[in-house]
Amino acid sequence: MSMLNILVTGGAGFIGCHMCERLVERGHHVTAADNLVLGLRDNLSALAGSNSFVFQEMDVTDRPALGALFEQGRFDAVFHLAANSDIARSQADPGVDFVATLDTTYAVLDAMRRHGTKQIIFASTSAVYGEAQGVLREDHGPLLPISHYGAAKLASEAFISSYVANYGLQAWITRFPNVVGDRSTHGAIYDWARKLARTPDRLEVLGNGEQIKPYLHVDDLVDAILVAWDRGDAPVNLFNVGGDTRCSVRDMAGIMVEEWPEAARIDYTGGDRGWVGDVPSVDYDVARIRALGWTPRLNSAEAVRAAARWAIGQVRQASPA
Amino acid sequence: MSMLNILVTGGAGFIGCHMCERLVERGHHVTAADNLVLGLRDNLSALAGSNSFVFQEMDVTDRPALGALFEQGRFDAVFHLAANSDIARSQADPGVDFVATLDTTYAVLDAMRRHGTKQIIFASTSAVYGEAQGVLREDHGPLLPISHYGAAKLASEAFISSYVANYGLQAWITRFPNVVGDRSTHGAIYDWARKLARTPDRLEVLGNGEQIKPYLHVDDLVDAILVAWDRGDAPVNLFNVGGDTRCSVRDMAGIMVEEWPEAARIDYTGGDRGWVGDVPSVDYDVARIRALGWTPRLNSAEAVRAAARWAIGQVRQASPA
Repeated sequence: MSMLNILVTGGAGFIGCHMCERLVERGHHVTAADNLVLGLRDNLSALAGSNSFVFQEMDVTDRPALGALFEQGRFDAVFHLAANSDIARSQADPGVDFVATLDTTYAVLDAMRRHGTKQIIFASTSAVYGEAQGVLREDHGPLLPISHYGAAKLASEAFISSYVANYGLQAWITRFPNVVGDRSTHGAIYDWARKLARTPDRLEVLGNGEQIKPYLHVDDLVDAILVAWDRGDAPVNLFNVGGDTRCSVRDMAGIMVEEWPEAARIDYTGGDRGWVGDVPSVDYDVARIRALGWTPRLNSAEAVRAAARWAIGQVRQASPA
Repeated sequence: MSMLNILVTGGAGFIGCHMCERLVERGHHVTAADNLVLGLRDNLSALAGSNSFVFQEMDVTDRPALGALFEQGRFDAVFHLAANSDIARSQADPGVDFVATLDTTYAVLDAMRRHGTKQIIFASTSAVYGEAQGVLREDHGPLLPISHYGAAKLASEAFISSYVANYGLQAWITRFPNVVGDRSTHGAIYDWARKLARTPDRLEVLGNGEQIKPYLHVDDLVDAILVAWDRGDAPVNLFNVGGDTRCSVRDMAGIMVEEWPEAARIDYTGGDRGWVGDVPSVDYDVARIRALGWTPRLNSAEAVRAAARWAIGQVRQASPA
């Protein structure tokens, strides 16, 4: 593939920073846009000296700023990863997801329409499936999300689809579950490491520990998104992405305290979920992306362990005992 | 059912005015809100003297005005029908549907959350299915709408679902195809009557006439929505609504010129659809709403004929020959 000009929205976020590095490695020119609400400038430190990389601090919903960026960047493709990734936070304020998760998508799509950018690669989520039971394939319906995050991602998919049909765009949408790994900016493992730093002999876990979900390492996710982009040739290419393996919250908490250098007990708060909008169990069909040749290198437990080590390293670096 | 305080958004529109009349007949107190962009005050003339009816000219996306309306109205239920119903128009300006079709829903949902209104009855559309082939059931997926209208309705469904899960609302969503009948404010029959008024011997029809779709009379649709509301008891009740019969554009045009009092020939512009975002063929499974006891009184051709007579009467009343 020749060198492309690529915009990565949410480029300083957890998945965004890994994606920027991989796209630069592939020889592309990458512009990362991020409002640094959840993203961190430090996440991009490895790219600081690169001639193939530009960081732009901005809010993607700022239409004049986004228009200027497109005018200057002449983008061939947009990896649209900007979103509110903190699902629990938006229960109190649905506007968080309406703006940060959905309006960012609409802003990006409309800038693409105005500036002739044709390819959008979109980070969707297993949360679009809500509490649907059974093994979930891409053709599952109806989609009844139970979090505003899932709703805003489904709404984003809907407008991506109508923009593809009306303006000749092409889209690659991946719906993925919990992603873990280094440079995470949120999530249970991230929260647990901070809790352990405060109370080194005790880990409080929301819920009863019985929730069981697939966990994917961020490196495997980035591979999957790129495989989908390389090999999906439909107008709208939609893929579930996840491993075949799952991990319970109880197992994750066990891994966490194994990796923690001091003795710590685990206390469960009880109940079948951590917060309203959290889904207790997800089972996921990933045959379509497997058929393109992708397979994760780490299973769920391995991904969790790698993430736990990184998160623990972070909090111990910040406040050495 | 006891007397309820009900808000009908888009209450002066085509479906809204019929719904207001039926709800007042049932003994409810009805407030209609409409910005009169597509709706017409005259559509509500039959209710002008009623003590059980209030009309409020306003834009539902005006948060302070909507908040004041909810404060005063103490609504038990909202029939959310406000939308941009002119699918063709939004191809040039996607913002029309993002605001009038989606942001209206978000504004209504958030007013319901703030003011404790628990029931939402939502007018969705077969356009959420895009160009999907085969007989479409409610559990069809993935949903890839090809119009911004379909995208905004799907996005609305998504947020309705997350509001139900987070704030204890209950929802009744009906996905319906082309609706025809008296007091229509748009659509092919409406457009054709105006064309015939200008050129009484010639009817220009967009496309090749081969598109074939179900048509539902507005009275049958209002029945279906009320049956769904009366009998659906899930948190989110989702129903396709339509007849078992379909009608081609060619058949519709034939009915139109039969009802037109002068001799007129039909000219087709060619191509398999009238505009980008139009779907050439829809086949629709309505077993779920049928199982609740609803059945349409008029088939597609009868519904088209009733609508044609009304539309012709309107243009001839406006400019008698």
